[in-house]
Amino acid sequence: MSATCLFCKIVKGTIPSRKIIETEKTLAFLDIEPLAKGHALVIPKEHAEFFHQLSDESLSDLLPTAKKVALALGAPNYNLLQNNGQLAHQVVPHVHFHIIPKPDTVQGLGISWPVQKFGEQEFEETLKDIRAKLS
Amino acid sequence: MSATCLFCKIVKGTIPSRKIIETEKTLAFLDIEPLAKGHALVIPKEHAEFFHQLSDESLSDLLPTAKKVALALGAPNYNLLQNNGQLAHQVVPHVHFHIIPKPDTVQGLGISWPVQKFGEQEFEETLKDIRAKLS
Repeated sequence: MSATCLFCKIVKGTIPSRKIIETEKTLAFLDIEPLAKGHALVIPKEHAEFFHQLSDESLSDLLPTAKKVALALGAPNYNLLQNNGQLAHQVVPHVHFHIIPKPDTVQGLGISWPVQKFGEQEFEETLKDIRAKLS
Repeated sequence: MSATCLFCKIVKGTIPSRKIIETEKTLAFLDIEPLAKGHALVIPKEHAEFFHQLSDESLSDLLPTAKKVALALGAPNYNLLQNNGQLAHQVVPHVHFHIIPKPDTVQGLGISWPVQKFGEQEFEETLKDIRAKLS
């Protein structure tokens, strides 16, 4: 845990939250700045700034808990979003998954999708680089 | 498995993919229409159209596998995104998590964040509704 982290304080209960559900590893609560009714956050109790820093134990529990929240929200359209780094829209430096209902075109997450054009060679080089780092 | 599903065919290998990593439950490969270099998809082998329909066994394996991909990509800024329903930008009807590097303001996921104003009463009613559906 981090002594200065907002979400660690919510986990400890020293800052209140609108709690939805809690397991040994995970906490879900309503976002205080919702993009739509029911906008929830699902966070690991373990402190980590970025997704890739979390333990597998925390990661394994996150989505089954998020599923319970999604089922309770009952939204037919929704996005799961987890942001890493300021450029990627991360604000609080403790990993959090947003579950954001998309009831209409105005509320909910706004997405733009700027597809890039890569040639076959660029794809193959990218894949080779990634595989090299995996092994 | 669904006989007509594009991603089930990729899992079976009857449609080729640029495969990154595979476990018993999960497959990761490069998106053919990337928003940035290294844009990857992490999918459960189990067929389900929506996140909330997946088994906990599939869900538990997804993020530890996605972490391996994120570490191999090595992007300092990136988004994890999973879309449910056409209004929420879902195109292929088989659950898939995007891992999208955000190298600059042009490439990668474009996000807009239309915060809604709710009063305390609306928050409390929302929370009550969600909790009622959980129990």
